[in-house]
Amino acid sequence: MDAKLAKEHKPDPFEFEYTTRDAIIYALGIGCKAKEDLRYIYEGAEGFIPLPTYVVAPGLLANMILDWPGIQFDLTRILHGDQYIELYAPLPSEGSLRSETRVVDVLDKGSGALIMSEITTYDAHSGKKLAMQQFGTFQVGSGNFGGARTSPHEKKGADIPKRPADKILSDTTSVDQAALYRMGSGDLNPLHVDPEFATMSGFKTPILHGLCSMGFATRHVLKAFANNDATLFKAMKVRFTSPVLPGQTLETHMWDEGDRVVFETKVKETGKTVVSNGYMLLHGKTGRGQAKL
Amino acid sequence: MDAKLAKEHKPDPFEFEYTTRDAIIYALGIGCKAKEDLRYIYEGAEGFIPLPTYVVAPGLLANMILDWPGIQFDLTRILHGDQYIELYAPLPSEGSLRSETRVVDVLDKGSGALIMSEITTYDAHSGKKLAMQQFGTFQVGSGNFGGARTSPHEKKGADIPKRPADKILSDTTSVDQAALYRMGSGDLNPLHVDPEFATMSGFKTPILHGLCSMGFATRHVLKAFANNDATLFKAMKVRFTSPVLPGQTLETHMWDEGDRVVFETKVKETGKTVVSNGYMLLHGKTGRGQAKL
Repeated sequence: MDAKLAKEHKPDPFEFEYTTRDAIIYALGIGCKAKEDLRYIYEGAEGFIPLPTYVVAPGLLANMILDWPGIQFDLTRILHGDQYIELYAPLPSEGSLRSETRVVDVLDKGSGALIMSEITTYDAHSGKKLAMQQFGTFQVGSGNFGGARTSPHEKKGADIPKRPADKILSDTTSVDQAALYRMGSGDLNPLHVDPEFATMSGFKTPILHGLCSMGFATRHVLKAFANNDATLFKAMKVRFTSPVLPGQTLETHMWDEGDRVVFETKVKETGKTVVSNGYMLLHGKTGRGQAKL
Repeated sequence: MDAKLAKEHKPDPFEFEYTTRDAIIYALGIGCKAKEDLRYIYEGAEGFIPLPTYVVAPGLLANMILDWPGIQFDLTRILHGDQYIELYAPLPSEGSLRSETRVVDVLDKGSGALIMSEITTYDAHSGKKLAMQQFGTFQVGSGNFGGARTSPHEKKGADIPKRPADKILSDTTSVDQAALYRMGSGDLNPLHVDPEFATMSGFKTPILHGLCSMGFATRHVLKAFANNDATLFKAMKVRFTSPVLPGQTLETHMWDEGDRVVFETKVKETGKTVVSNGYMLLHGKTGRGQAKL
Protein backbone atom coordinates (compact mmCIF):
# COMPACT_ATOMS: atom_id res chain seq x y z
CA MET A 1 0.00 0.00 0.00
CA ASP A 2 1.28 3.47 -0.89
CA ALA A 3 -1.05 6.12 0.53
CA LYS A 4 0.76 9.03 -1.13
CA LEU A 5 0.52 7.53 -4.60
CA ALA A 6 -3.11 6.53 -4.05
CA LYS A 7 -4.11 10.05 -2.97
CA GLU A 8 -2.52 11.63 -6.04
CA HIS A 9 -4.51 9.64 -8.57
CA LYS A 10 -7.41 11.50 -10.20
CA PRO A 11 -9.29 9.23 -12.57
CA ASP A 12 -11.80 10.46 -15.14
CA PRO A 13 -15.29 11.03 -13.75
CA PHE A 14 -17.58 8.02 -13.85
CA GLU A 15 -20.83 8.35 -15.78
CA PHE A 16 -23.90 6.43 -14.65
CA GLU A 17 -27.35 6.37 -16.20
CA TYR A 18 -30.38 4.96 -14.49
CA THR A 19 -34.09 4.63 -15.08
CA THR A 20 -37.03 4.44 -12.68
CA ARG A 21 -36.80 0.67 -13.18
CA ASP A 22 -33.24 0.60 -11.83
CA ALA A 23 -34.23 2.63 -8.79
CA ILE A 24 -37.17 0.29 -8.14
CA ILE A 25 -35.04 -2.85 -8.38
CA TYR A 26 -32.70 -1.27 -5.84
CA ALA A 27 -35.68 -0.45 -3.57
CA LEU A 28 -36.91 -4.05 -3.76
CA GLY A 29 -33.32 -5.16 -3.13
CA ILE A 30 -33.33 -3.39 0.25
CA GLY A 31 -36.68 -4.88 1.17
CA CYS A 32 -39.21 -2.23 0.19
CA LYS A 33 -42.76 -3.54 0.36
CA ALA A 34 -45.42 -2.91 -2.26
CA LYS A 35 -47.97 -2.07 0.42
CA GLU A 36 -45.97 0.33 2.59
CA ASP A 37 -43.50 1.74 0.11
CA LEU A 38 -45.50 2.30 -3.08
CA ARG A 39 -43.68 5.57 -3.66
CA TYR A 40 -40.36 3.71 -4.01
CA ILE A 41 -41.45 0.66 -6.00
CA TYR A 42 -44.03 2.01 -8.47
CA GLU A 43 -42.92 4.51 -11.10
CA GLY A 44 -46.52 5.76 -11.44
CA ALA A 45 -46.97 6.51 -7.72
CA GLU A 46 -47.47 10.07 -6.56
CA GLY A 47 -44.11 11.50 -5.52
CA PHE A 48 -42.13 8.56 -6.88
CA ILE A 49 -38.51 8.93 -5.82
CA PRO A 50 -35.39 6.75 -5.60
CA LEU A 51 -34.30 5.93 -2.07
CA PRO A 52 -31.49 8.32 -1.04
CA THR A 53 -29.13 5.40 -0.48
CA TYR A 54 -29.48 4.44 -4.15
CA VAL A 55 -26.55 6.81 -4.62
CA VAL A 56 -24.32 3.96 -3.40
CA ALA A 57 -24.97 2.21 -6.73
CA PRO A 58 -23.08 4.78 -8.83
CA GLY A 59 -20.78 5.30 -5.85
CA LEU A 60 -19.67 1.69 -5.69
CA LEU A 61 -19.09 1.48 -9.43
CA ALA A 62 -17.19 4.77 -9.35
CA ASN A 63 -15.05 3.46 -6.49
CA MET A 64 -12.56 1.80 -8.85
CA ILE A 65 -9.94 0.92 -6.24
CA LEU A 66 -9.63 -2.52 -7.82
CA ASP A 67 -7.21 -0.94 -10.25
CA TRP A 68 -5.73 2.09 -8.51
CA PRO A 69 -2.13 3.27 -8.19
CA GLY A 70 -0.74 2.59 -4.73
CA ILE A 71 -3.40 0.04 -3.78
CA GLN A 72 -2.97 -3.72 -3.74
CA PHE A 73 -6.48 -5.04 -4.16
CA ASP A 74 -7.54 -8.64 -3.54
CA LEU A 75 -11.27 -9.21 -4.09
CA THR A 76 -11.26 -12.40 -2.01
CA ARG A 77 -9.97 -10.52 1.07
CA ILE A 78 -11.97 -7.33 0.91
CA LEU A 79 -14.65 -6.18 3.36
CA HIS A 80 -16.80 -3.09 3.46
CA GLY A 81 -15.84 -1.32 6.69
CA ASP A 82 -17.96 1.80 6.85
CA GLN A 83 -20.03 4.21 4.81
CA TYR A 84 -20.93 7.88 4.99
CA ILE A 85 -23.55 9.47 2.74
CA GLU A 86 -24.57 13.10 2.50
CA LEU A 87 -27.26 14.21 0.08
CA TYR A 88 -27.53 17.83 -1.07
CA ALA A 89 -30.69 17.27 -3.10
CA PRO A 90 -33.00 14.30 -3.72
CA LEU A 91 -31.92 12.03 -6.58
CA PRO A 92 -33.96 12.61 -9.75
CA SER A 93 -36.42 9.80 -10.50
CA GLU A 94 -34.21 8.88 -13.43
CA GLY A 95 -31.22 10.49 -14.99
CA SER A 96 -27.54 10.61 -15.56
CA LEU A 97 -24.96 11.08 -12.81
CA ARG A 98 -21.29 12.01 -12.90
CA SER A 99 -19.12 10.91 -10.01
CA GLU A 100 -15.59 11.94 -9.06
CA THR A 101 -13.57 9.56 -6.95
CA ARG A 102 -10.58 10.34 -4.77
CA VAL A 103 -8.74 8.17 -2.30
CA VAL A 104 -8.48 10.54 0.64
CA ASP A 105 -6.43 8.19 2.83
CA VAL A 106 -5.15 4.65 3.20
CA LEU A 107 -4.96 3.82 6.89
CA ASP A 108 -2.76 1.20 8.48
CA LYS A 109 -4.99 -0.71 10.87
CA GLY A 110 -2.46 -3.48 11.61
CA SER A 111 -4.65 -6.42 10.63
CA GLY A 112 -5.43 -4.70 7.37
CA ALA A 113 -5.51 -1.50 5.37
CA LEU A 114 -8.55 0.80 5.41
CA ILE A 115 -8.92 2.44 2.02
CA MET A 116 -10.93 5.64 2.40
CA SER A 117 -12.42 6.83 -0.85
CA GLU A 118 -14.59 9.89 -1.28
CA ILE A 119 -17.04 10.09 -4.13
CA THR A 120 -18.79 13.28 -5.16
CA THR A 121 -21.79 12.88 -7.42
CA TYR A 122 -23.31 15.48 -9.73
CA ASP A 123 -26.35 15.56 -11.97
CA ALA A 124 -24.63 15.10 -15.32
CA HIS A 125 -27.08 17.39 -17.13
CA SER A 126 -27.47 20.31 -14.74
CA GLY A 127 -24.07 19.97 -13.08
CA LYS A 128 -25.78 20.26 -9.69
CA LYS A 129 -23.93 18.62 -6.82
CA LEU A 130 -26.17 15.88 -5.44
CA ALA A 131 -24.16 13.83 -2.98
CA MET A 132 -20.90 13.11 -1.26
CA GLN A 133 -20.09 9.72 0.16
CA GLN A 134 -17.18 7.96 1.76
CA PHE A 135 -16.52 4.26 1.33
CA GLY A 136 -14.25 2.66 3.90
CA THR A 137 -12.92 -0.54 2.32
CA PHE A 138 -10.97 -2.91 4.52
CA GLN A 139 -8.28 -4.98 2.81
CA VAL A 140 -7.68 -7.86 5.21
CA GLY A 141 -4.02 -8.78 5.74
CA SER A 142 -2.61 -5.67 4.05
CA GLY A 143 -1.76 -3.71 7.18
CA ASN A 144 1.61 -2.97 8.75
CA PHE A 145 2.84 -0.99 5.78
CA GLY A 146 3.96 1.90 7.97
CA GLY A 147 0.96 4.12 7.24
CA ALA A 148 -1.06 6.48 9.44
CA ARG A 149 -3.65 4.91 11.78
CA THR A 150 -6.16 7.76 11.70
CA SER A 151 -7.26 10.41 9.25
CA PRO A 152 -8.74 13.91 9.49
CA HIS A 153 -11.17 12.85 6.76
CA GLU A 154 -12.76 10.14 8.91
CA LYS A 155 -16.41 10.81 9.84
CA LYS A 156 -16.89 9.74 13.44
CA GLY A 157 -19.65 7.23 14.11
CA ALA A 158 -22.24 7.77 16.87
CA ASP A 159 -21.95 6.52 20.43
CA ILE A 160 -24.88 4.28 21.27
CA PRO A 161 -26.86 5.60 24.29
CA LYS A 162 -27.02 3.37 27.37
CA ARG A 163 -30.83 3.61 27.71
CA PRO A 164 -33.19 1.19 25.94
CA ALA A 165 -33.94 2.09 22.32
CA ASP A 166 -36.76 4.56 21.69
CA LYS A 167 -37.95 2.62 18.65
CA ILE A 168 -37.26 -0.80 17.20
CA LEU A 169 -38.26 -1.95 13.72
CA SER A 170 -37.42 -5.21 12.03
CA ASP A 171 -37.69 -6.93 8.67
CA THR A 172 -36.87 -10.45 7.65
CA THR A 173 -34.62 -10.55 4.61
CA SER A 174 -35.44 -13.03 1.87
CA VAL A 175 -33.14 -16.00 1.25
CA ASP A 176 -32.69 -14.42 -2.18
CA GLN A 177 -32.13 -10.88 -0.87
CA ALA A 178 -28.47 -10.80 -1.86
CA ALA A 179 -29.21 -12.19 -5.34
CA LEU A 180 -31.74 -9.40 -5.84
CA TYR A 181 -29.62 -6.69 -4.23
CA ARG A 182 -26.83 -7.52 -6.69
CA MET A 183 -29.18 -6.63 -9.53
CA GLY A 184 -30.42 -3.47 -7.84
CA SER A 185 -27.03 -2.13 -6.82
CA GLY A 186 -24.78 -3.38 -9.58
CA ASP A 187 -22.44 -4.79 -6.92
CA LEU A 188 -21.75 -8.10 -8.64
CA ASN A 189 -19.13 -9.36 -6.17
CA PRO A 190 -19.62 -13.16 -6.35
CA LEU A 191 -19.23 -13.33 -2.55
CA HIS A 192 -22.93 -12.58 -2.34
CA VAL A 193 -24.19 -15.37 -4.58
CA ASP A 194 -21.52 -17.93 -5.44
CA PRO A 195 -21.14 -20.65 -2.79
CA GLU A 196 -17.64 -21.61 -4.02
CA PHE A 197 -16.39 -18.04 -3.97
CA ALA A 198 -17.89 -17.55 -0.50
CA THR A 199 -15.97 -20.59 0.76
CA MET A 200 -12.74 -19.22 -0.77
CA SER A 201 -13.36 -15.99 1.13
CA GLY A 202 -13.76 -17.87 4.41
CA PHE A 203 -17.56 -17.87 4.67
CA LYS A 204 -19.75 -20.97 4.84
CA THR A 205 -22.35 -19.50 2.49
CA PRO A 206 -22.78 -16.31 0.45
CA ILE A 207 -23.39 -13.29 2.68
CA LEU A 208 -25.55 -10.22 2.31
CA HIS A 209 -23.96 -6.97 1.10
CA GLY A 210 -23.21 -4.60 3.99
CA LEU A 211 -24.86 -1.87 1.94
CA CYS A 212 -28.00 -4.00 1.70
CA SER A 213 -28.20 -4.19 5.50
CA MET A 214 -27.60 -0.44 5.53
CA GLY A 215 -30.55 -0.05 3.17
CA PHE A 216 -32.80 -1.95 5.58
CA ALA A 217 -31.58 0.22 8.46
CA THR A 218 -32.25 3.35 6.40
CA ARG A 219 -35.82 2.26 5.72
CA HIS A 220 -36.33 1.61 9.43
CA VAL A 221 -35.10 5.07 10.45
CA LEU A 222 -37.14 6.80 7.73
CA LYS A 223 -40.25 4.94 8.89
CA ALA A 224 -39.69 5.61 12.56
CA PHE A 225 -38.62 9.26 12.35
CA ALA A 226 -39.49 10.71 8.94
CA ASN A 227 -42.98 9.40 8.11
CA ASN A 228 -41.23 7.20 5.55
CA ASP A 229 -40.46 10.31 3.50
CA ALA A 230 -37.14 9.83 1.73
CA THR A 231 -36.94 13.49 0.74
CA LEU A 232 -36.13 14.27 4.40
CA PHE A 233 -32.84 12.34 4.28
CA LYS A 234 -29.80 14.50 4.86
CA ALA A 235 -26.82 12.39 5.93
CA MET A 236 -25.92 9.06 7.45
CA LYS A 237 -22.94 7.18 8.81
CA VAL A 238 -22.67 3.44 9.52
CA ARG A 239 -20.03 0.85 10.35
CA PHE A 240 -20.28 -2.77 9.24
CA THR A 241 -19.26 -5.10 12.05
CA SER A 242 -20.46 -8.58 11.22
CA PRO A 243 -21.84 -10.44 8.19
CA VAL A 244 -25.54 -11.14 7.63
CA LEU A 245 -26.86 -14.27 5.95
CA PRO A 246 -29.74 -13.90 3.49
CA GLY A 247 -32.91 -14.98 5.29
CA GLN A 248 -31.96 -13.51 8.66
CA THR A 249 -34.04 -10.83 10.37
CA LEU A 250 -32.60 -7.32 10.65
CA GLU A 251 -33.72 -5.41 13.72
CA THR A 252 -32.84 -1.75 13.99
CA HIS A 253 -32.65 -0.14 17.42
CA MET A 254 -33.09 3.63 17.26
CA TRP A 255 -32.55 6.44 19.69
CA ASP A 256 -34.08 9.89 19.27
CA GLU A 257 -31.19 12.22 20.00
CA GLY A 258 -32.96 15.42 19.07
CA ASP A 259 -31.36 16.66 15.88
CA ARG A 260 -30.19 13.20 14.95
CA VAL A 261 -31.28 9.59 15.10
CA VAL A 262 -28.69 7.18 16.46
CA PHE A 263 -29.11 3.53 15.52
CA GLU A 264 -27.63 0.09 15.30
CA THR A 265 -28.92 -3.01 13.54
CA LYS A 266 -28.74 -6.54 14.90
CA VAL A 267 -29.48 -9.96 13.48
CA LYS A 268 -32.48 -10.97 15.55
CA GLU A 269 -31.72 -14.69 15.36
CA THR A 270 -28.22 -14.31 16.82
CA GLY A 271 -28.32 -10.98 18.66
CA LYS A 272 -25.16 -9.91 16.83
CA THR A 273 -24.74 -6.25 15.89
CA VAL A 274 -24.13 -6.00 12.15
CA VAL A 275 -24.49 -2.27 11.52
CA SER A 276 -23.04 -0.24 14.37
CA ASN A 277 -22.48 3.35 15.51
CA GLY A 278 -25.03 4.59 13.01
CA TYR A 279 -26.62 7.98 12.86
CA MET A 280 -28.90 9.77 10.44
CA LEU A 281 -29.59 13.47 9.99
CA LEU A 282 -33.00 14.43 8.66
CA HIS A 283 -34.28 17.69 7.24
CA GLY A 284 -36.75 19.28 9.63
CA LYS A 285 -35.62 17.27 12.63
CA THR A 286 -34.28 19.76 15.12
CA GLY A 287 -35.65 18.31 18.34
CA ARG A 288 -37.21 15.09 19.60
CA GLY A 289 -39.97 13.47 17.51
CA GLN A 290 -40.68 13.12 13.82
CA ALA A 291 -38.91 15.21 11.22
CA LYS A 292 -41.17 17.61 9.37
CA LEU A 293 -40.54 19.61 6.21
CA MET B 1 -63.88 -5.44 -33.02
CA ASP B 2 -63.04 -6.05 -36.68
CA ALA B 3 -61.21 -9.36 -37.07
CA LYS B 4 -60.53 -8.90 -40.77
CA LEU B 5 -58.90 -5.50 -40.31
CA ALA B 6 -56.91 -6.74 -37.30
CA LYS B 7 -55.54 -9.74 -39.22
CA GLU B 8 -54.37 -7.60 -42.13
CA HIS B 9 -52.17 -5.30 -40.04
CA LYS B 10 -48.43 -6.03 -40.24
CA PRO B 11 -46.49 -3.70 -37.94
CA ASP B 12 -42.73 -3.25 -38.08
CA PRO B 13 -40.76 -5.88 -36.17
CA PHE B 14 -40.12 -5.10 -32.51
CA GLU B 15 -36.50 -4.94 -31.38
CA PHE B 16 -35.59 -5.95 -27.84
CA GLU B 17 -32.19 -5.95 -26.19
CA TYR B 18 -31.45 -7.67 -22.94
CA THR B 19 -28.52 -8.39 -20.67
CA THR B 20 -27.81 -11.23 -18.26
CA ARG B 21 -29.05 -8.85 -15.55
CA ASP B 22 -32.46 -8.56 -17.22
CA ALA B 23 -32.76 -12.33 -17.52
CA ILE B 24 -31.82 -12.71 -13.83
CA ILE B 25 -34.38 -10.15 -12.66
CA TYR B 26 -36.99 -12.10 -14.63
CA ALA B 27 -35.81 -15.36 -13.01
CA LEU B 28 -36.11 -13.83 -9.52
CA GLY B 29 -39.49 -12.46 -10.58
CA ILE B 30 -40.80 -15.99 -11.13
CA GLY B 31 -39.41 -17.17 -7.81
CA CYS B 32 -36.02 -18.67 -8.68
CA LYS B 33 -34.00 -19.43 -5.56
CA ALA B 34 -30.31 -18.65 -5.16
CA LYS B 35 -29.68 -22.11 -3.69
CA GLU B 36 -31.53 -24.29 -6.19
CA ASP B 37 -31.41 -22.18 -9.32
CA LEU B 38 -27.90 -20.71 -9.38
CA ARG B 39 -27.73 -21.26 -13.13
CA TYR B 40 -30.62 -18.83 -13.67
CA ILE B 41 -29.79 -16.13 -11.14
CA TYR B 42 -25.98 -15.81 -11.30
CA GLU B 43 -24.37 -14.63 -14.52
CA GLY B 44 -21.09 -16.32 -13.52
CA ALA B 45 -22.63 -19.75 -12.92
CA GLU B 46 -21.65 -22.66 -15.14
CA GLY B 47 -24.17 -22.97 -17.95
CA PHE B 48 -25.93 -19.69 -17.13
CA ILE B 49 -29.05 -19.40 -19.25
CA PRO B 50 -32.25 -17.34 -19.27
CA LEU B 51 -35.38 -19.28 -18.42
CA PRO B 52 -37.17 -20.29 -21.65
CA THR B 53 -40.28 -18.38 -20.60
CA TYR B 54 -38.25 -15.16 -20.53
CA VAL B 55 -39.28 -14.94 -24.18
CA VAL B 56 -42.66 -13.63 -22.95
CA ALA B 57 -40.89 -10.37 -22.01
CA PRO B 58 -40.14 -9.35 -25.61
CA GLY B 59 -43.35 -11.12 -26.61
CA LEU B 60 -45.55 -9.01 -24.40
CA LEU B 61 -43.92 -5.76 -25.47
CA ALA B 62 -44.16 -6.82 -29.12
CA ASN B 63 -47.86 -7.60 -28.64
CA MET B 64 -48.90 -4.02 -29.35
CA ILE B 65 -52.66 -4.65 -29.53
CA LEU B 66 -53.23 -1.55 -27.40
CA ASP B 67 -53.01 0.42 -30.63
CA TRP B 68 -54.01 -1.96 -33.41
CA PRO B 69 -56.42 -1.49 -36.34
CA GLY B 70 -59.70 -3.32 -35.76
CA ILE B 71 -59.18 -3.74 -32.00
CA GLN B 72 -60.89 -1.71 -29.28
CA PHE B 73 -58.55 -1.98 -26.35
CA ASP B 74 -59.42 -1.02 -22.76
CA LEU B 75 -56.59 -1.65 -20.31
CA THR B 76 -58.93 -1.65 -17.32
CA ARG B 77 -60.98 -4.54 -18.76
CA ILE B 78 -58.28 -6.77 -20.17
CA LEU B 79 -57.30 -10.23 -18.93
CA HIS B 80 -54.66 -12.66 -20.09
CA GLY B 81 -56.58 -15.74 -21.24
CA ASP B 82 -54.00 -18.22 -22.41
CA GLN B 83 -50.44 -18.61 -23.60
CA TYR B 84 -48.56 -20.94 -25.91
CA ILE B 85 -44.77 -20.94 -26.19
CA GLU B 86 -42.58 -22.97 -28.50
CA LEU B 87 -38.80 -22.62 -28.40
CA TYR B 88 -36.65 -23.67 -31.36
CA ALA B 89 -33.35 -22.95 -29.60
CA PRO B 90 -32.36 -21.80 -26.11
CA LEU B 91 -32.34 -18.02 -25.65
CA PRO B 92 -28.80 -16.58 -25.69
CA SER B 93 -27.57 -15.44 -22.26
CA GLU B 94 -27.84 -11.89 -23.53
CA GLY B 95 -28.56 -10.39 -26.89
CA SER B 96 -30.89 -8.70 -29.23
CA LEU B 97 -34.19 -10.15 -30.43
CA ARG B 98 -36.48 -9.22 -33.28
CA SER B 99 -40.16 -10.14 -32.96
CA GLU B 100 -42.90 -10.12 -35.57
CA THR B 101 -46.48 -9.81 -34.36
CA ARG B 102 -49.65 -10.83 -36.17
CA VAL B 103 -53.20 -11.00 -34.92
CA VAL B 104 -54.23 -14.39 -36.24
CA ASP B 105 -57.85 -14.16 -35.03
CA VAL B 106 -60.28 -12.18 -32.91
CA LEU B 107 -62.85 -14.57 -31.47
CA ASP B 108 -66.31 -13.67 -30.31
CA LYS B 109 -66.77 -15.36 -26.95
CA GLY B 110 -70.03 -13.59 -26.07
CA SER B 111 -68.92 -12.14 -22.75
CA GLY B 112 -65.83 -10.76 -24.41
CA ALA B 113 -63.46 -10.86 -27.36
CA LEU B 114 -60.44 -13.17 -27.40
CA ILE B 115 -57.61 -11.50 -29.30
CA MET B 116 -55.20 -14.16 -30.53
CA SER B 117 -51.80 -12.76 -31.41
CA GLU B 118 -48.88 -14.77 -32.67
CA ILE B 119 -45.36 -13.55 -32.10
CA THR B 120 -42.34 -15.01 -33.83
CA THR B 121 -38.99 -14.13 -32.35
CA TYR B 122 -35.59 -14.19 -34.06
CA ASP B 123 -32.05 -13.59 -32.93
CA ALA B 124 -31.55 -10.10 -34.36
CA HIS B 125 -27.88 -10.76 -35.19
CA SER B 126 -27.92 -14.26 -36.66
CA GLY B 127 -31.49 -14.12 -37.94
CA LYS B 128 -32.08 -17.55 -36.37
CA LYS B 129 -35.70 -18.29 -35.46
CA LEU B 130 -35.83 -18.80 -31.70
CA ALA B 131 -39.46 -18.93 -30.64
CA MET B 132 -43.11 -18.73 -31.54
CA GLN B 133 -45.74 -17.81 -29.01
CA GLN B 134 -49.43 -17.11 -28.92
CA PHE B 135 -50.99 -14.65 -26.51
CA GLY B 136 -54.71 -15.01 -25.93
CA THR B 137 -55.94 -11.67 -24.58
CA PHE B 138 -59.50 -11.46 -23.31
CA GLN B 139 -61.22 -8.09 -23.66
CA VAL B 140 -64.10 -8.28 -21.18
CA GLY B 141 -67.42 -6.91 -22.46
CA SER B 142 -66.33 -6.65 -26.10
CA GLY B 143 -68.09 -9.78 -27.38
CA ASN B 144 -71.20 -10.16 -29.50
CA PHE B 145 -69.68 -8.39 -32.48
CA GLY B 146 -70.70 -11.18 -34.83
CA GLY B 147 -67.27 -12.83 -35.04
CA ALA B 148 -66.21 -16.49 -35.17
CA ARG B 149 -66.23 -18.45 -31.89
CA THR B 150 -63.32 -20.77 -32.68
CA SER B 151 -60.12 -20.58 -34.70
CA PRO B 152 -57.95 -23.12 -36.53
CA HIS B 153 -54.95 -21.33 -34.98
CA GLU B 154 -56.00 -22.18 -31.42
CA LYS B 155 -53.62 -24.57 -29.62
CA LYS B 156 -55.69 -27.01 -27.63
CA GLY B 157 -54.96 -27.27 -23.92
CA ALA B 158 -54.46 -30.63 -22.18
CA ASP B 159 -57.18 -32.67 -20.52
CA ILE B 160 -56.33 -33.27 -16.88
CA PRO B 161 -56.14 -36.99 -16.04
CA LYS B 162 -58.60 -38.32 -13.47
CA ARG B 163 -55.93 -40.09 -11.37
CA PRO B 164 -54.03 -38.34 -8.56
CA ALA B 165 -51.07 -36.23 -9.69
CA ASP B 166 -47.75 -38.03 -10.15
CA LYS B 167 -45.82 -35.09 -8.71
CA ILE B 168 -46.74 -31.97 -6.77
CA LEU B 169 -44.42 -29.03 -6.15
CA SER B 170 -45.25 -25.75 -4.49
CA ASP B 171 -43.72 -22.34 -3.81
CA THR B 172 -45.00 -19.44 -1.77
CA THR B 173 -44.94 -16.21 -3.74
CA SER B 174 -43.66 -13.12 -1.99
CA VAL B 175 -46.05 -10.28 -1.15
CA ASP B 176 -43.84 -8.26 -3.49
CA GLN B 177 -43.73 -10.86 -6.25
CA ALA B 178 -45.83 -8.80 -8.65
CA ALA B 179 -43.77 -5.66 -7.98
CA LEU B 180 -40.62 -7.61 -8.84
CA TYR B 181 -42.12 -9.49 -11.79
CA ARG B 182 -43.06 -6.12 -13.34
CA MET B 183 -39.38 -5.21 -13.37
CA GLY B 184 -38.31 -8.60 -14.72
CA SER B 185 -40.89 -8.85 -17.46
CA GLY B 186 -41.39 -5.24 -18.46
CA ASP B 187 -45.15 -5.74 -18.05
CA LEU B 188 -45.87 -2.46 -16.28
CA ASN B 189 -49.67 -2.79 -16.20
CA PRO B 190 -50.57 -0.90 -12.99
CA LEU B 191 -53.12 -3.62 -12.18
CA HIS B 192 -50.24 -5.51 -10.57
CA VAL B 193 -49.04 -2.82 -8.20
CA ASP B 194 -51.43 0.14 -7.96
CA PRO B 195 -54.25 -0.41 -5.40
CA GLU B 196 -56.44 2.31 -6.97
CA PHE B 197 -56.07 0.91 -10.47
CA ALA B 198 -56.80 -2.60 -9.15
CA THR B 199 -60.04 -1.34 -7.58
CA MET B 200 -61.03 0.34 -10.85
CA SER B 201 -60.49 -3.01 -12.58
CA GLY B 202 -62.76 -4.76 -10.09
CA PHE B 203 -60.14 -6.35 -7.84
CA LYS B 204 -59.74 -5.74 -4.11
CA THR B 205 -55.95 -5.56 -4.33
CA PRO B 206 -53.32 -5.74 -7.08
CA ILE B 207 -53.06 -9.25 -8.52
CA LEU B 208 -50.16 -11.31 -9.77
CA HIS B 209 -49.45 -11.43 -13.52
CA GLY B 210 -50.80 -14.62 -15.11
CA LEU B 211 -47.42 -15.01 -16.79
CA CYS B 212 -45.76 -14.88 -13.37
CA SER B 213 -47.88 -17.82 -12.19
CA MET B 214 -46.97 -19.53 -15.46
CA GLY B 215 -43.30 -18.96 -14.62
CA PHE B 216 -43.73 -20.69 -11.25
CA ALA B 217 -45.50 -23.60 -12.97
CA THR B 218 -42.69 -23.83 -15.53
CA ARG B 219 -40.08 -24.06 -12.77
CA HIS B 220 -42.08 -26.79 -11.08
CA VAL B 221 -42.32 -28.90 -14.24
CA LEU B 222 -38.64 -28.40 -15.09
CA LYS B 223 -37.69 -29.48 -11.56
CA ALA B 224 -39.98 -32.49 -11.49
CA PHE B 225 -39.32 -33.79 -15.01
CA ALA B 226 -36.21 -32.18 -16.50
CA ASN B 227 -33.65 -32.12 -13.66
CA ASN B 228 -34.24 -28.38 -13.56
CA ASP B 229 -32.50 -28.09 -16.94
CA ALA B 230 -34.09 -25.26 -18.90
CA THR B 231 -32.34 -26.29 -22.12
CA LEU B 232 -34.76 -29.25 -22.30
CA PHE B 233 -37.80 -26.98 -22.71
CA LYS B 234 -39.58 -27.43 -26.02
CA ALA B 235 -43.14 -26.10 -25.81
CA MET B 236 -45.91 -25.26 -23.37
CA LYS B 237 -49.56 -24.29 -23.28
CA VAL B 238 -51.51 -22.85 -20.35
CA ARG B 239 -54.84 -21.21 -19.63
CA PHE B 240 -55.34 -18.62 -16.92
CA THR B 241 -58.54 -19.24 -15.02
CA SER B 242 -58.42 -17.25 -11.81
CA PRO B 243 -56.34 -14.42 -10.31
CA VAL B 244 -53.55 -14.97 -7.78
CA LEU B 245 -52.75 -12.57 -4.97
CA PRO B 246 -49.09 -11.87 -4.19
CA GLY B 247 -48.18 -13.87 -1.10
CA GLN B 248 -50.29 -16.91 -1.98
CA THR B 249 -48.78 -20.37 -2.45
CA LEU B 250 -48.74 -21.84 -5.96
CA GLU B 251 -49.00 -25.61 -6.06
CA THR B 252 -48.48 -27.38 -9.36
CA HIS B 253 -50.02 -30.81 -9.88
CA MET B 254 -48.23 -32.75 -12.60
CA TRP B 255 -49.01 -35.89 -14.54
CA ASP B 256 -46.42 -37.88 -16.45
CA GLU B 257 -48.10 -38.58 -19.75
CA GLY B 258 -45.11 -40.12 -21.46
CA ASP B 259 -44.02 -37.70 -24.15
CA ARG B 260 -45.58 -34.79 -22.34
CA VAL B 261 -46.17 -33.44 -18.84
CA VAL B 262 -49.72 -32.36 -18.12
CA PHE B 263 -50.21 -29.92 -15.25
CA GLU B 264 -52.40 -27.45 -13.47
CA THR B 265 -51.55 -24.96 -10.74
CA LYS B 266 -53.74 -24.16 -7.75
CA VAL B 267 -53.61 -21.57 -5.01
CA LYS B 268 -52.96 -23.78 -1.98
CA GLU B 269 -54.76 -21.46 0.45
CA THR B 270 -58.04 -21.51 -1.51
CA GLY B 271 -57.82 -24.69 -3.62
CA LYS B 272 -58.70 -22.65 -6.72
CA THR B 273 -57.15 -23.64 -10.03
CA VAL B 274 -55.34 -20.62 -11.49
CA VAL B 275 -53.37 -22.16 -14.35
CA SER B 276 -55.34 -24.89 -16.06
CA ASN B 277 -55.13 -27.41 -18.91
CA GLY B 278 -51.35 -26.99 -19.04
CA TYR B 279 -48.87 -29.20 -20.81
CA MET B 280 -45.16 -29.04 -21.48
CA LEU B 281 -43.07 -30.82 -24.08
CA LEU B 282 -39.45 -31.52 -23.20
CA HIS B 283 -36.52 -32.53 -25.35
CA GLY B 284 -35.49 -36.09 -24.56
CA LYS B 285 -38.78 -37.02 -22.94
CA THR B 286 -40.30 -39.75 -25.07
CA GLY B 287 -41.71 -41.99 -22.36
CA ARG B 288 -42.42 -41.92 -18.64
CA GLY B 289 -39.78 -40.45 -16.28
CA GLN B 290 -37.25 -37.66 -16.49
CA ALA B 291 -36.29 -36.03 -19.76
CA LYS B 292 -32.68 -36.61 -20.82
CA LEU B 293 -30.64 -34.97 -23.53
